[in-house]
Amino acid sequence: MTIKLTDQEISDALAQLKGWELREGKLCADLEFENFISAFAFMTKIAMHAEKIDHHPEWRNVYRNLSIALTTHDAGGLSAKDLALAHAIDQELGR
Amino acid sequence: MTIKLTDQEISDALAQLKGWELREGKLCADLEFENFISAFAFMTKIAMHAEKIDHHPEWRNVYRNLSIALTTHDAGGLSAKDLALAHAIDQELGR
Repeated sequence: MTIKLTDQEISDALAQLKGWELREGKLCADLEFENFISAFAFMTKIAMHAEKIDHHPEWRNVYRNLSIALTTHDAGGLSAKDLALAHAIDQELGR
Repeated sequence: MTIKLTDQEISDALAQLKGWELREGKLCADLEFENFISAFAFMTKIAMHAEKIDHHPEWRNVYRNLSIALTTHDAGGLSAKDLALAHAIDQELGR
């Protein structure tokens, strides 16, 4: 069982992340790329990170748009794993 | 402007495809793979087909599940492009 973050921990984390917001308890970001190739290439990078840390995003891609939602099912909310993945995504975005 | 398929054409096409259904006018399929690696590997194959025929899916991936919705925005409905992509997906699935 993964430990769920407290509201305070989530609030502190959001202040450090860029372009993320809470929606229905999930950590969400909407990204727009130049085109489909760029969007899917980015997804491929994140897929590698996700598999490596064994924590995977819920994500939806439509052409150059990518919406990501992070949550930890076995914690019943957000956990440190979501923050790690969000930070990896921010780093890949260079933001 | 891409030509929109008629209801009859859509009905005929659905009879030839496997595991697809209409939802809100879009051609949809829900797929389940062994794990995330398999799901994302499949998405990568389809991404190549999509880019090649310049027609891209709306798709959502959550771990080993992949939901695909096909539509042609500039036709205002389904077109032959959606059928081509659906057939390519069926072929990759070996079904």
